[in-house]
Amino acid sequence: MDGKETNHFDIIKEKNGVRNMSELEWKPKKSSSFPLHLQISNYIKMKILNGEWPLGTRIPSQRILAKQFGVNRSTIVTALEELTADGLIEAKVGSGTKVVNNTWSLLASTPPPDWLSYVQSGIHEPNIHIIQKINESEANPNIIRLGTGELSPELLPKKQMAALLQNMEEPLFLGYEEPKGNHDLRVTIGHFLERKGIAVSPASILVVSGALQALQLISIGLLKRGSVIFHETPSYLNSVHVFQSAGMKLFGIPIDHEGMITDSIDLLKRQHNGALLYTIPSFHNPTGIFMSENRKQQLLAVCKNSALPIIEDDVYGDLWFENPPPKPMKASDKEGNVLYIGSVSKSFSPGLRIGWIVGPEPVIDRLADIKMQTDYGSSTLSQYVVNKWIKSGLYEDYLNQVRKELKYRRDFALTLLAKYFSDIATWNIPAGGFYIWLELQDGISTRKLFDLALQEGILINPGSIYDKNDQVHLRLSYSYASLADLEKGMIRLSELIKGLIG
Amino acid sequence: MDGKETNHFDIIKEKNGVRNMSELEWKPKKSSSFPLHLQISNYIKMKILNGEWPLGTRIPSQRILAKQFGVNRSTIVTALEELTADGLIEAKVGSGTKVVNNTWSLLASTPPPDWLSYVQSGIHEPNIHIIQKINESEANPNIIRLGTGELSPELLPKKQMAALLQNMEEPLFLGYEEPKGNHDLRVTIGHFLERKGIAVSPASILVVSGALQALQLISIGLLKRGSVIFHETPSYLNSVHVFQSAGMKLFGIPIDHEGMITDSIDLLKRQHNGALLYTIPSFHNPTGIFMSENRKQQLLAVCKNSALPIIEDDVYGDLWFENPPPKPMKASDKEGNVLYIGSVSKSFSPGLRIGWIVGPEPVIDRLADIKMQTDYGSSTLSQYVVNKWIKSGLYEDYLNQVRKELKYRRDFALTLLAKYFSDIATWNIPAGGFYIWLELQDGISTRKLFDLALQEGILINPGSIYDKNDQVHLRLSYSYASLADLEKGMIRLSELIKGLIG
Repeated sequence: MDGKETNHFDIIKEKNGVRNMSELEWKPKKSSSFPLHLQISNYIKMKILNGEWPLGTRIPSQRILAKQFGVNRSTIVTALEELTADGLIEAKVGSGTKVVNNTWSLLASTPPPDWLSYVQSGIHEPNIHIIQKINESEANPNIIRLGTGELSPELLPKKQMAALLQNMEEPLFLGYEEPKGNHDLRVTIGHFLERKGIAVSPASILVVSGALQALQLISIGLLKRGSVIFHETPSYLNSVHVFQSAGMKLFGIPIDHEGMITDSIDLLKRQHNGALLYTIPSFHNPTGIFMSENRKQQLLAVCKNSALPIIEDDVYGDLWFENPPPKPMKASDKEGNVLYIGSVSKSFSPGLRIGWIVGPEPVIDRLADIKMQTDYGSSTLSQYVVNKWIKSGLYEDYLNQVRKELKYRRDFALTLLAKYFSDIATWNIPAGGFYIWLELQDGISTRKLFDLALQEGILINPGSIYDKNDQVHLRLSYSYASLADLEKGMIRLSELIKGLIG
Repeated sequence: MDGKETNHFDIIKEKNGVRNMSELEWKPKKSSSFPLHLQISNYIKMKILNGEWPLGTRIPSQRILAKQFGVNRSTIVTALEELTADGLIEAKVGSGTKVVNNTWSLLASTPPPDWLSYVQSGIHEPNIHIIQKINESEANPNIIRLGTGELSPELLPKKQMAALLQNMEEPLFLGYEEPKGNHDLRVTIGHFLERKGIAVSPASILVVSGALQALQLISIGLLKRGSVIFHETPSYLNSVHVFQSAGMKLFGIPIDHEGMITDSIDLLKRQHNGALLYTIPSFHNPTGIFMSENRKQQLLAVCKNSALPIIEDDVYGDLWFENPPPKPMKASDKEGNVLYIGSVSKSFSPGLRIGWIVGPEPVIDRLADIKMQTDYGSSTLSQYVVNKWIKSGLYEDYLNQVRKELKYRRDFALTLLAKYFSDIATWNIPAGGFYIWLELQDGISTRKLFDLALQEGILINPGSIYDKNDQVHLRLSYSYASLADLEKGMIRLSELIKGLIG
């Protein structure tokens, strides 16, 4: 063992101490007597020896490591050379640099479990690449997010919520709730839904951790593998893999300005043995349109005749600007043909993770049973807060305010579109929700635009996320970015588009 | 339409009003001018007409309805006769009374979707019958729960938690967290785990909604259908269907007083192509034993040699009475062979639904991706509270107190056992956690005992939940019932057992 080796282990010992390992963003100390490259190679060695980076792990690229550690790329190159010399990592053309050894595996007669084969063999499909890229980029606080479907942090009711928590009358309940969720919350949701014309008793309501979990429970609780789900084209459903991961297939139905076109549903149901129809009638994700009253009645009738149950996803329904959208289909559903989904994630707090499913009691019983097997219920604290928020009327007050803010933001975005996009795109004018469905001039690669924009710190949601054949749309969201960022981002985006054309 | 019909619809209209339908526990009004049976038949009719009880729904038994509505059984009989006469329900020998019609379905040319066939055809298996019965009975506040694996409500830190919420320094974060969970919480968990000898950086920690969700994510994220999971016999794993529902098989390994017996693991792994080994080394559920240091090292070595990854479920590890249990296996795991699971559900609040998985970074990345697809992360409010609770030292203070309380309860239960059970059962003395594994004298049917006890308002957990071949054990929990209930329940239970023998 040479002097360098000894130094290695000194540092490792120090790191076993181990404040350094728990730092979220470890960086080498420029003031240290150890050279930067040695600090870095030792840090990576620790990751390997601790089993955090097991055999087969692909090491991040030199560029990413240099950025992460705040050093020059040449320092990274030196550090990786040391690790390669130690036999811990190996670079292969075409597949990057991987962990090929650790001191223990050198001693072991049999290899440790190959986690990577486990990672590749799970039932659940990984998020598609572009969505993973969006998720990663969203962690960067400096990026301008022009496609994000959330309320801007500046619109969330932080102060009101803190005040609510400071004035709790009842003692906090910290135990498990009953399978369908907190009693009082379900009563409150029942009253809340009355105003939308939906009459339901608490026994037919299930509290869930957001609308996505509602879909997850429906997929594993009610459907067979291979079942076919109908949805609007384009649809939010294509951007999540909740049904596909459970072995179901998606099938898109065309839409017009009134919503899903109903003519062919009966035929398609018979041809493809459709199991469910999923729709977002109000302020549809990603197109922003709302389904007309007339179309809703047609869809209800068609689905009833075809014995095709409906999932009505109404998470944007409260976010109208001038007039409420037509009543939910659930309000006219007397045969229990509709499973209705609501949530507070879009309208006041994504982070609380509270939504609800309303449907026939045996279906709700079944889904509650699955939910108990999945996570033993949603956070009691979140349920408490949502109950109080809605019951006290704070929610209505806040909605009135957020509707004004969103309308202002929509108008702001429309002004920018008129000024900078009128010769390169067309768009609709949404009457509520978050989204404008921007159709770009023919011949512009939205995939290329996505990469170009990301390089400049602008994150957009290409239409291909919502319809894999789509190459001309962007989902533009006016809900998330600050007004300054919205302006800056949209102007730059228009320039990038013009560059692609020109 | 006769006069009675008109009355029906008057009431229905009034109910469309609709405060009544949203009442959680609707009961007929004894002061009303409408007879009780009519109020009840109208209420049920509303349930049917609203689609809450769709075609095929089985109506609760007369006994249950009488209890629910607080009326005599004869009143229920009359009400059901009316509904039968209306053609809405029908009693069939052997399959109970079901909804066979509603006014709309009489008009409809095609039947509505048969939800019940959906309920039966989902991928996920329903909870087994006895567990459903336990879940239901737990909703009854008057039942004495001698098997419940939770801290008693009187032990939960309600006041401290309310104080914590009232003194929030930072503004509340209401948006989505990043995929692996809140930054600060993961740093805090990292420091917390250092004390157990586990060195881990936040990038290798995933925040989840409790340990059950951890297993759910592992099952769908890492394993193939048909994979074989090894576990202790008996095991908590048999009481949840998280792996079976995802198409995996469970295989039990025998235990002794030091924990899982390791001799045959290598052979079994090869014979059955085992994919994972699941263990609760500290204060095992349901037996209460802890794995010795020696056994832990053996198990680690065996699993390493067999390339069999380990899931180490440590949710009871903090609840020791005299001395901490041996360090987690994760502390000695240098090859990334162990996925370590922790949670606050057993140690201070089930309702917050916060736990964590620690493992190799690529595995954590994968599970984080699946978690994002499942529910977009855990409640930010819960994460905030848990972070503050642990970071501030409140958790350590509370643990010191709860350890004393639990030890007192264990001793109290042991005294009762010595006094009332010494001639009918044997048991171990747990050094931590919640459970005593009570072995009854041969020839007593624990299934029969379960039913008998339930009739007297005492809920027990028979061993068959944890090992389907077990007929002689009960999982006795001293953590949940009040001391008075514990005494009353255990005395009565001993009498019931003696009755079964005699």
